[in-house]
Amino acid sequence: PTVHVQFGEAGAMLAGDAMQALAFEVLTPDPDLPDTMPPALQARLCGLLARAAGHAGMAGGQAIDLAATGKALDEVSLRDMHRRKTGALLQASVLMGAATGPCNVQVYEALREFGAALGLAFQVVDDILDVTQDSDILGKTAGKDVDANKPTYVTVLGLDEARRQARTLHLQALAALQRAGLNHTDHLRLLADMVVDRDS
Amino acid sequence: PTVHVQFGEAGAMLAGDAMQALAFEVLTPDPDLPDTMPPALQARLCGLLARAAGHAGMAGGQAIDLAATGKALDEVSLRDMHRRKTGALLQASVLMGAATGPCNVQVYEALREFGAALGLAFQVVDDILDVTQDSDILGKTAGKDVDANKPTYVTVLGLDEARRQARTLHLQALAALQRAGLNHTDHLRLLADMVVDRDS
Repeated sequence: PTVHVQFGEAGAMLAGDAMQALAFEVLTPDPDLPDTMPPALQARLCGLLARAAGHAGMAGGQAIDLAATGKALDEVSLRDMHRRKTGALLQASVLMGAATGPCNVQVYEALREFGAALGLAFQVVDDILDVTQDSDILGKTAGKDVDANKPTYVTVLGLDEARRQARTLHLQALAALQRAGLNHTDHLRLLADMVVDRDS
Repeated sequence: PTVHVQFGEAGAMLAGDAMQALAFEVLTPDPDLPDTMPPALQARLCGLLARAAGHAGMAGGQAIDLAATGKALDEVSLRDMHRRKTGALLQASVLMGAATGPCNVQVYEALREFGAALGLAFQVVDDILDVTQDSDILGKTAGKDVDANKPTYVTVLGLDEARRQARTLHLQALAALQRAGLNHTDHLRLLADMVVDRDS
């Protein structure tokens, strides 16, 4: 059961509010503690997270999603919605990692592209699984988006084209990662494979 | 009408999520912009806000409030709830102001006490107005807390004792402000008066 089923809507809402604040609390440890992040890095990480979580990111994407239910969306609007809803935070998780180390502009831009392709791929695969997978394997109710009359990559582009775009985004992510020219990228590459090859 | 009445619960929830993130976005401007806050100050402000908004502050207080409906609370628990629910953010607004200027430990501690007394006073007065004021003047439904069977300063301590505590907190706030020894405190003093003397 989800949090709102188990603890009620008010409790779920408060848990969300508290956990959003907690993320910023974790990012701003007392700078006098030993081995802690320097304040300039704390500020940078808070800035990246805030912009990915808020109106330009997840919350904004979710609002577009809410307003789009029952309406037709073209591919550009659908991509914009997905980029914000899921893509922005996935991308931020990559960029926040990059910000903690030495990272020149070229590497940072390549990682930004990796995160963007990965984030969008995640959502396209989500749309595909919603129509192709059983609820038990999926771990959530399959067909939910279609039942709710929500525009998805599958309803807007068809299943074949959605699958083709997922593959293209996967390749874009891997190419961007290669372009970053980092030494140890096995985990990031595995992550990209996992996002696209998952069945739940 | 409140946001959830006008735009629905899902829209209100998203607006809350987006605005919480927006606060941290505003606190973390690009440090390369002219006349902007130095990163160390940005991090300090984010840290103060996160701790006041989250589990130890507003969201935590609201959760205690939710769990306390229909139950008896003693004065200590009630004060703890109010300190988190309203007090923490009011106090943070004072401390965030203090953090932006040069401010030694003594002044900061005095302002912390000012904010704590002011924040708690605000909530005690809220509880008093809920039972003494008409809905039109109050600008929200009077008697709501009592109807909802929520423990308040009035239900736990009685109206006279609640009024006495509001006066005591007001005096504590003014004394702490005096102890801070700052030159221009007219606005902060007026704010303290307003919190206690308001009728809506």
